[in-house]
Amino acid sequence: MAVKKSKNNIMIPNGYKSTDTNRRLKWLKEKTGMEIDANLENKPEDLKGIIENHIGFMKIPMAIAGPLLLNGNYAKGEFFVPLCTLEGTLAVSMMRGMMVAKRCGGFYVSHVKQELSRAPVFIFDDLASANKFMRWVDTHFKSIKKSAESTTNHGKLIRIDQYPIQNYVVLDMVMDTGNAAGQNMVTLAAKTACDFIKAKTGDDFILESGFNSDKKASARNMILGRGHSVIAETTITNAVLRRILGIKISDVEKFQQVGPTVTRMAGTEGCHLHVSNALTAIYLATGQDTACVAENSIGHYQTEPVNHGMKFRLTLPSITVGTVGGGTRLLPQNQNLKLLGCNTGKYSSRKLAEIICASSLALEISLMSAIASGTFAKAHMIYGR
Amino acid sequence: MAVKKSKNNIMIPNGYKSTDTNRRLKWLKEKTGMEIDANLENKPEDLKGIIENHIGFMKIPMAIAGPLLLNGNYAKGEFFVPLCTLEGTLAVSMMRGMMVAKRCGGFYVSHVKQELSRAPVFIFDDLASANKFMRWVDTHFKSIKKSAESTTNHGKLIRIDQYPIQNYVVLDMVMDTGNAAGQNMVTLAAKTACDFIKAKTGDDFILESGFNSDKKASARNMILGRGHSVIAETTITNAVLRRILGIKISDVEKFQQVGPTVTRMAGTEGCHLHVSNALTAIYLATGQDTACVAENSIGHYQTEPVNHGMKFRLTLPSITVGTVGGGTRLLPQNQNLKLLGCNTGKYSSRKLAEIICASSLALEISLMSAIASGTFAKAHMIYGR
Amino acid sequence: MAVKKSKNNIMIPNGYKSTDTNRRLKWLKEKTGMEIDANLENKPEDLKGIIENHIGFMKIPMAIAGPLLLNGNYAKGEFFVPLCTLEGTLAVSMMRGMMVAKRCGGFYVSHVKQELSRAPVFIFDDLASANKFMRWVDTHFKSIKKSAESTTNHGKLIRIDQYPIQNYVVLDMVMDTGNAAGQNMVTLAAKTACDFIKAKTGDDFILESGFNSDKKASARNMILGRGHSVIAETTITNAVLRRILGIKISDVEKFQQVGPTVTRMAGTEGCHLHVSNALTAIYLATGQDTACVAENSIGHYQTEPVNHGMKFRLTLPSITVGTVGGGTRLLPQNQNLKLLGCNTGKYSSRKLAEIICASSLALEISLMSAIASGTFAKAHMIYGR
Amino acid sequence: MAVKKSKNNIMIPNGYKSTDTNRRLKWLKEKTGMEIDANLENKPEDLKGIIENHIGFMKIPMAIAGPLLLNGNYAKGEFFVPLCTLEGTLAVSMMRGMMVAKRCGGFYVSHVKQELSRAPVFIFDDLASANKFMRWVDTHFKSIKKSAESTTNHGKLIRIDQYPIQNYVVLDMVMDTGNAAGQNMVTLAAKTACDFIKAKTGDDFILESGFNSDKKASARNMILGRGHSVIAETTITNAVLRRILGIKISDVEKFQQVGPTVTRMAGTEGCHLHVSNALTAIYLATGQDTACVAENSIGHYQTEPVNHGMKFRLTLPSITVGTVGGGTRLLPQNQNLKLLGCNTGKYSSRKLAEIICASSLALEISLMSAIASGTFAKAHMIYGR
Repeated sequence: MAVKKSKNNIMIPNGYKSTDTNRRLKWLKEKTGMEIDANLENKPEDLKGIIENHIGFMKIPMAIAGPLLLNGNYAKGEFFVPLCTLEGTLAVSMMRGMMVAKRCGGFYVSHVKQELSRAPVFIFDDLASANKFMRWVDTHFKSIKKSAESTTNHGKLIRIDQYPIQNYVVLDMVMDTGNAAGQNMVTLAAKTACDFIKAKTGDDFILESGFNSDKKASARNMILGRGHSVIAETTITNAVLRRILGIKISDVEKFQQVGPTVTRMAGTEGCHLHVSNALTAIYLATGQDTACVAENSIGHYQTEPVNHGMKFRLTLPSITVGTVGGGTRLLPQNQNLKLLGCNTGKYSSRKLAEIICASSLALEISLMSAIASGTFAKAHMIYGR
Repeated sequence: MAVKKSKNNIMIPNGYKSTDTNRRLKWLKEKTGMEIDANLENKPEDLKGIIENHIGFMKIPMAIAGPLLLNGNYAKGEFFVPLCTLEGTLAVSMMRGMMVAKRCGGFYVSHVKQELSRAPVFIFDDLASANKFMRWVDTHFKSIKKSAESTTNHGKLIRIDQYPIQNYVVLDMVMDTGNAAGQNMVTLAAKTACDFIKAKTGDDFILESGFNSDKKASARNMILGRGHSVIAETTITNAVLRRILGIKISDVEKFQQVGPTVTRMAGTEGCHLHVSNALTAIYLATGQDTACVAENSIGHYQTEPVNHGMKFRLTLPSITVGTVGGGTRLLPQNQNLKLLGCNTGKYSSRKLAEIICASSLALEISLMSAIASGTFAKAHMIYGR
Repeated sequence: MAVKKSKNNIMIPNGYKSTDTNRRLKWLKEKTGMEIDANLENKPEDLKGIIENHIGFMKIPMAIAGPLLLNGNYAKGEFFVPLCTLEGTLAVSMMRGMMVAKRCGGFYVSHVKQELSRAPVFIFDDLASANKFMRWVDTHFKSIKKSAESTTNHGKLIRIDQYPIQNYVVLDMVMDTGNAAGQNMVTLAAKTACDFIKAKTGDDFILESGFNSDKKASARNMILGRGHSVIAETTITNAVLRRILGIKISDVEKFQQVGPTVTRMAGTEGCHLHVSNALTAIYLATGQDTACVAENSIGHYQTEPVNHGMKFRLTLPSITVGTVGGGTRLLPQNQNLKLLGCNTGKYSSRKLAEIICASSLALEISLMSAIASGTFAKAHMIYGR
Repeated sequence: MAVKKSKNNIMIPNGYKSTDTNRRLKWLKEKTGMEIDANLENKPEDLKGIIENHIGFMKIPMAIAGPLLLNGNYAKGEFFVPLCTLEGTLAVSMMRGMMVAKRCGGFYVSHVKQELSRAPVFIFDDLASANKFMRWVDTHFKSIKKSAESTTNHGKLIRIDQYPIQNYVVLDMVMDTGNAAGQNMVTLAAKTACDFIKAKTGDDFILESGFNSDKKASARNMILGRGHSVIAETTITNAVLRRILGIKISDVEKFQQVGPTVTRMAGTEGCHLHVSNALTAIYLATGQDTACVAENSIGHYQTEPVNHGMKFRLTLPSITVGTVGGGTRLLPQNQNLKLLGCNTGKYSSRKLAEIICASSLALEISLMSAIASGTFAKAHMIYGR
């Protein structure tokens, strides 16, 4: 699983000594112009809205992986991605995936859409009342939208999808939440909109039906997406596949025959290897709500042989990240957003989502290569616990 | 969402000031006899096997929730649970759930089983060969077991379940991994066992079929479990429901009618509200692999009205935690395991799994009460971002 | 499970003798004015488009259940429903459900929507091309619609939902197919529309991506519906529950606690008991494509206690039936459509869908009562094989 | 979609005229020695246990497809398969799949296991009682087995799998039901066993928890199987693929890239095209309970390129068919079982399951070829409604 050394200071310095850590920080400064301050820490007073009953800070080891070469709709250029993890091999494995992609032109990433939903549910005594209600909602979208958007400066109510089921009508309120991850924004908007609807129709509701499956993997989010929907791709040449990843096309094809079938029997949402690893590591480093990984780590990973090599793609339909609000305002977390160039900018959350998707694909490529080439167990014995 | 103050120093001191943090640490020491050292930090040299490319530590805010009164198969007594989160309301909400349970006798928790699987797959040219192979495995379990267990001092191969599908035979190797979370243990055991099988039969394999759905929510793990399978229950009296949680039985019943139906349409594995929140917070605090939350946050939450109140239950079929190995050996993480009494003991990982399940149920009860009583949005406006 | 006799000829005569069969036919004529001709048979020449390699006709036993009292959007009044089955107890059980509902005011049925989709998929070399394509489709909906609708007199293309995944873009073409079940209609429309798109954009497609999950149970159809989406409800009084169905509210509540949780662990789409039984029996009798039952038998069945009794509801989101085309034109099948008043009329397929949903609910109520009251096994020993 | 004529009377005569039907019956007699009596009909008196409220027989068009060349564990030789359908193209399409397989050596079929389960559920007030119960069941398996088997001459209780969830313990009672489909057999056995358990432990149960997902597609049955689990395979040469099926390897590979990914997004159990079509047609012809198709039409279909052609495989994990009991005893249905050599014999139900699986694979191959070669819509315009 070794990545070959190359001259000209291209590679992140390795090693487990304190001096190695310092060399990496220095190297990172040279590459990015940014000096990571490892001593940043918020005061307890800053943590209002972040945590209650504060007793201190847990120190999670942090690493850097890169360079990640990206051509996205929003993220363009080279990135060095901060990672927090306790799993040996993760950082080096993701870096390996980034390196092979860089040699072959990098990743293309497509931000498909940004739609965060909150799904209150109205409850009826009988179906006739439910029918009447659905027609009312259809004809009053404008005023409902106005009510919902009165609660936010940046959020937009894109549409309301109605899902009648039994005597319930779920209103799936789909919003563009700007640079906020947006869970609280949609909660407040939905609450205000539903209070408005109730005032007009007299019908009662529960604010959270569970249909948006916040923080849970779901078929709904696989099909319809939630938050940012992003797709990444890269093409790795045969030479790089063979020499750096140590795999043959036939190894990969065998694996691609087996994996989709067996994991489908297992019943996962989509088919990939370990997207949650990449997501967790980057979410922790950038102030995201890491509990969202349970919801976000669904998707499709697949390879396609082409003439001169292999295409790798990853679709992540539900990435609920933001660059403002929540934990992103804490000092060390915000420092990492700055490292990624995602601390400011109109579409910084979309940019972040693209970086996350490409990084996840890098990690998928590397693990798949380890499994397909039979070095998976060995790598974990070397780098793992 | 306020928890009433009571005399005799029962409640954790609240407040967002530095002095409040210190009061909490002092209070915790009085309660548990344990002094939390907030400055513990491992040296880069200690991080071999934990992370590569280390550049520092991310500081994640940490809180305490409790007391959690538990009567489990392995965890008995009062516990104070460390939590790392960036989501406002989480700590105070979990504490609220713990408090109401404590007033009503606490939680009963049942550790059902501990079965971590790794699922290699053997690949055949034709079905006749696959059939022959399956019979061979059935008749050679003893020697396969011996081979697998040669790699570990504590792990036991419980059984091998065979899943033939197409021209593949998945060997679901189910192990008791002792106090280790065990993912690497089962990888190495499976690798060695499969090498042995291949040497005898000549049949080729891929070490990871994906069937065990490591780090992914799945139907397999919902049905068969993976890691620790745990169920928690508590009975809350009508008086406590009404006065502290602010809900009526009829509110809860309405919610329990709607939730299971709507979330089933959404297609989540099991039905609960936000188990990933509790899991993420405790995993981060205790050195677990937080990426496993994606796999572990499936389960069933349900209420049952009884004469004098309401029973609440939570089944978590797949909790892959450990108390040795991996991140648990880092100083601050291990300090938290010690706080829970889970740093030593023959069944400390089972004890930890029980604490996690009860804490998760506490958080479920509190959130459900907030949704059912219509205070969900308000609470997030007060405590949230 | 016995249904009490009542005077005034309300009940269908029972018994297994030939004379009983004749009494039923006579009774049916009195009730409906319609004489069932048991000897109707098409000639082989009529079977073009229905079957190839014809060697004869299989005789499937046919029964009648009713009266079904309905207040639907399209179906109103009393219906006698023809059933073809080999499963003892099915006909008598469905009739029991119909009888108890009739005594309590009958069924209300709500036809929610009619949307049959065919989902071709366009395939791209890279994501940039896919993006460009999606925008093209969005801006050319009108001309695509014109092309699609050029193939049909009755079908309307309602919308095209785009689902990008990896390098594919699924075009979910949603049509109102009028009184036709419509699978062939949407195939031809989609083919023509895709040929048009390909001619304009140069992009290649496969006509059937599988996303519409024709003839397969799916999450997509649970969430989005396919064909007719219908919901039925009825309220049964406590007296009828107790005296005719032999159940107490508490029996039902116990069952409703268990069923949704356990079947969710099993991983079915929605939660019901045996909708496929009702669907198969009616589809066979009315010339539907019975293989669609695999797709159509997903849904939600639930009870809700109310003051004076119990509400029962059934949501069937995907009923792909028609009253023109296919097997509906065969003589005996069409005779049964006529018996239901579904052989003509602008919305006869919607009417049929409502009848099917209410009949299915009748069967659900009866089976649930048998299970909850502990008479399930006994009933099958009496009526079953 | 035309199948080339060949000499020596190999092909079933085609055509839609009455004389063609007669030619086919004559041809079938020559081939099989069996004269199909198209006038067989049971008397109403024979229908006790089959149907109540009988009013006549529905005539479903019946066709023949073959020859199906099989090398199974139980089914060996050539078979002519009776089909009942209303879907034009089905019979000719299945026959096409059978013909190409025959030219290439036929189908190999592997009957993997036969395990029909009924899953009662015991309900407890608290988890401690549930734990105690589970241990009791484990230590009393022998006496429970004796009790269960006292109800049947042929059924064997293989094992009881326990699934604790919340305060419920599901007992998944797995039986070998011999030649019976067995749903009623396992109901009665489970009832008797549970009455026995209740008498000993005092614990209460509901006979049907829904976990076995009788007549419903489910993850449980995909993973664990129910009834007969069968896998079929065949290898088609490149020449036959090209000349008869009109496809190139690259067409198939493109389709195999797209299908598994898109249908997984749709959320079907397993990945295939239209297994329900084959199952429905054969079930109707052979006296099976056609409503079981909803449960049985889950599975995996996949292709694998090999040197000289393409391997096609189909796994059907849940085929609940029988050759005794239920509708199989009716005269015309039994005549068809005889045509397949499945009316007698110790393992006739396993033989039937193998025939069904191979026939389904034949139909899958043919449809996939039509889709991949772009002739799907055209074929339905020619043969369909």
